[in-house]
This record gives sequence, structure tokens and C-alpha cells, in this order.
Amino acid sequence: MDLLNSSEEMAAWAKAEGLKGHRIGFVPTMGFLHTGHVSLMERLRPRVDRLVVSIYVNPLQFGPNEDLDRYPRDPEGDSKKCRDAGVDALFMPPELYPDGFSTAVTVDRLTDGLCGASRPGHLDGVTTVVARLLNLVRCDEACFGEKDFQQLMVIRRMVRDLAIPVQIVPGPLVRDADGLALSSRNKYLSTADRAKGLTLHRALFAMREAEAAGEKRARVLLAIGQASLDVDVLDYLELVDAETLTAIEHVDRPARALVAAKVGNTRLIDNVAIGPELSWT
Amino acid sequence: MDLLNSSEEMAAWAKAEGLKGHRIGFVPTMGFLHTGHVSLMERLRPRVDRLVVSIYVNPLQFGPNEDLDRYPRDPEGDSKKCRDAGVDALFMPPELYPDGFSTAVTVDRLTDGLCGASRPGHLDGVTTVVARLLNLVRCDEACFGEKDFQQLMVIRRMVRDLAIPVQIVPGPLVRDADGLALSSRNKYLSTADRAKGLTLHRALFAMREAEAAGEKRARVLLAIGQASLDVDVLDYLELVDAETLTAIEHVDRPARALVAAKVGNTRLIDNVAIGPELSWT
Repeated sequence: MDLLNSSEEMAAWAKAEGLKGHRIGFVPTMGFLHTGHVSLMERLRPRVDRLVVSIYVNPLQFGPNEDLDRYPRDPEGDSKKCRDAGVDALFMPPELYPDGFSTAVTVDRLTDGLCGASRPGHLDGVTTVVARLLNLVRCDEACFGEKDFQQLMVIRRMVRDLAIPVQIVPGPLVRDADGLALSSRNKYLSTADRAKGLTLHRALFAMREAEAAGEKRARVLLAIGQASLDVDVLDYLELVDAETLTAIEHVDRPARALVAAKVGNTRLIDNVAIGPELSWT
Repeated sequence: MDLLNSSEEMAAWAKAEGLKGHRIGFVPTMGFLHTGHVSLMERLRPRVDRLVVSIYVNPLQFGPNEDLDRYPRDPEGDSKKCRDAGVDALFMPPELYPDGFSTAVTVDRLTDGLCGASRPGHLDGVTTVVARLLNLVRCDEACFGEKDFQQLMVIRRMVRDLAIPVQIVPGPLVRDADGLALSSRNKYLSTADRAKGLTLHRALFAMREAEAAGEKRARVLLAIGQASLDVDVLDYLELVDAETLTAIEHVDRPARALVAAKVGNTRLIDNVAIGPELSWT
């Protein structure tokens, strides 16, 4: 596995691989890798000739009162997980942006609600860093997890709009045995916090089951979800059109139920598909 | 010369040429081509295997009260000029953006002053369209004229910041025999307007000559420029650091004098280098 520590090294590596005619797959991460990240690598591995993972805790996507400084890090463990997953190059730059950096890539509408509303600037930070990373890695395919469903849809929109020559591949959300969606932030959770955290997926799956049983009214489905939640601060519980991310009244198209909440000091998110399947193009 | 009429055709053409190992050069334009545009094509032609020109009047870079609807067009004349200049592919899409387009690429600081101040949103429209075009054309080199000096510097900044794998090549400003900077908008000018328009370059060259003769004080140089100007509405006459585009007090580094003014209903711009030469990296 090649270790690449600067944008210049990454770009040179990608250019050389491209000249060899190799198809490149890419999984961008903020490190502290877990089974969810590894599942994204496994998803791309058979589809490409070379697999690249990046680890960069991107300051642009953290708000002033968020957990940038205490975001968990484990470069050695991450490196071993990448090696075991058959990664060809690990891009782990101490700094990613050039001197005088002053560009932003933003997507409107899709970013208006959900995490876009509760974490101002967060998704702008994501699209900006992903645009730079996709260009550095010159990948043919990049995999993003459905755990961050709004982020996934926003990145897909950006890639289409800017005609970035990459295919965005969604990676299914991975859960622990108890149902909690995997997240690097789960390490913050006390046992009591975790018990509350488990109510997120219970609420979502209760909505999903009720819909499958015939209940199509969003109002009723949301009440069912609400009744299952036990969290310290609920950020949002929403049922939206899976394409536009705007609220729906009835589940008459591919939809998504999404939740974000704080338990203790930790913000958790989760989501499930509801209704007809979303066609991914 | 291949005629490409959609983003899909452009992307497929570029991909095929890339697979052949061809280096691609690109000159994006809004059409109504003049000798200035052709000089950009001539500059790239010997440097690349395939030369692409795009013609697209980009609505995103026009303000609500600007001349989008009356922007001059001449697709047949343009096509002939491209053919004569040895262009391999002319990309002339009726529509450039996909349905639901909602992405913007913005550069801050460099866009604060000059045309960025007087044409709000204009440079954001430029960076957004150029990002999409560079990705569609997958070019190795792209040429932008120094006539739009702020635009050139903003695009160079964007390309660095987003790591777009393209070299930005500046093309020298081209003037008519009487000194007027070439512009598609010059066709709007009456004889009287044109006489006023000629005072733009006279002012700039007066500043340049005074600096070369030893006058380094920006205040004095600007007064010299002002004294030469005869326009209907002066938008700005500025002397700035050529890298940062911020005002300077003394010409002690590569600098640029820039002017924008209205004569009649037509907005004209011009600029000249002053002081030490700017190193282009």
C-alpha cells in the first residue's frame, strides 16, 4: 500500500495510474475507520483496478461549536484496516488546501433542510472538500455511505452539475448487532447514551414497517416514529422525497425517513428507505 | 472540425481523445469571435494535439439589467473562424446545464473589488460555468485572455483550490489599430462612443509610462490616468497588486492598472501590467 502525504503526491500517483489505463476507485473518509467504511472499500474493490482511501478531518465541514478538536483519530489502526481491505494507496495529508485557498463549492435546495438547516456551512464544507479530492484522485468511481444520506444526494448533484467525470456509488448503511448505525462518534457514547441512541433506528424501522403495512400518510408515520424516540435533544425527524429531500404528505414515491438527535453531547443521525425503491442513476 | 451540441457529446468526445493519449487544449468563449479569441486559439494550437473551442452565452454571468438578451451572436461566422484556426471540435450547446442544476463555485477575496464589486454575481457565474466546462472538456490546457484580468486570476485561483488537472494559460490582450481593446461589445459603439472608449487605454498607458519613468506613487499614477479619461460613467480606475488584486500605495511589486467605464450604453474594460513582471505559475 502506498502512503501519500501531500496533494502533489496524490495527483502524481493518480496521473501515473491513469496513464497505465487503470480504473481508480476512491473512498474519502475522516478516519477512525469502522466496518461501515470498510464496507465501502469492499464495495469498490472488485469494480476497479486501484483503490484509494483518503483520511482527512476537514475543518471546513465543522461548525465553530462542533467537535473538530476532539474528533477521534487512529492513524495506525486506520492504516492496518486499509491494508487488510486491499487498498492500494492511502492519502493522509496533514494539510489538504493550498496557501490562500478561497474557493467554495455549494449546492442549494438539497441543502436547505435536515442537516443543512441544523449545521450551517457543514454541507458546503463537504462539497468543497469532495470536489478537491475527486480532482486530485481522478477516480472513475467514488463510494459514499447512505448513512449520510443528504450528503450522498448533495454530492451526486454536485458531480452532475459540474460534470465531474466520476460515478458516485452509494454504500448501504452498516449497523452494529444492536441496530445502532455505525459512526466514528459512537465511541463517545456511555451505556445509557447508547440505549437512547438505539431508539433512533427503532423509530425509523417502526415507520418503515407501518408504511409497508399500508399506512401512507406522512403525518401518521411521523407520529409513529416520534412515539419510539427517547433522546436528549431531537434535531429532526422527517419523511422526505428521496430525490428532492423535501417533505411529502404521502408515501407515493421513493421516500426517506431521517432522524438526527443528541444523546449526551453526541449528535447521532440515521435514516431508512421507505416506499418504492429509489432508482440510482 | 467536429460539431458537438450537447454536454454528453462533448464528454464522450473528450473521453475518446483522452484514451488515445491526446493532449487537449481548450478556449471557452461566448461567441461573436474576434481576433482576440483567435489569438487564444493560436496560442494553444502548437501546444496540444486537439483543440476545442466552446461557444455558450452563459446566463449565470449576466446580471438582471445586463445585456444577455442582446449579446451579439454569429454562429456561422464563428464556425468559419474556428475552422480557419485549426480547431478540432466546436462545442456549441443550446443548453449547458442539466435539469435541476443547483451548484455554484465561488471564489472569495479576489472577487471583492473591480468587476466583482460592480457586477454582483458575475464572477460566480464565470467560475461555475468554467468549472463545468473544464470537466466536460477534460483539457490539459485552457487559455483565458488577459483582457478579463480579474476573471483570469479568479479562474487560476479556482483551478488551484479545486485541484482541477488543467494548466491555465494566459493570452495577451489584443488591441485594434487605434488601441481599443478588442471586445465583442465594441460592435455597439458609435463613432463618438468609440472616441471616448479610446481614452481607456490612453489613461492606462499614461500610467504605465509615468511608472516606467520613475513615478511609483499609486495616488499620483491614478491622477495621471484620471486626467486622460473621457467617459460617460467611470466604474473604476484602480492600481492593484497583480496577484491579490488589492489596492497598493506604491508600485513595488507586479501591479496592474485596470479600468471599467460606460460609453453610451456599453460597458468597456481594459488593463495593463505596471512595474515588475508577474511570474505565472
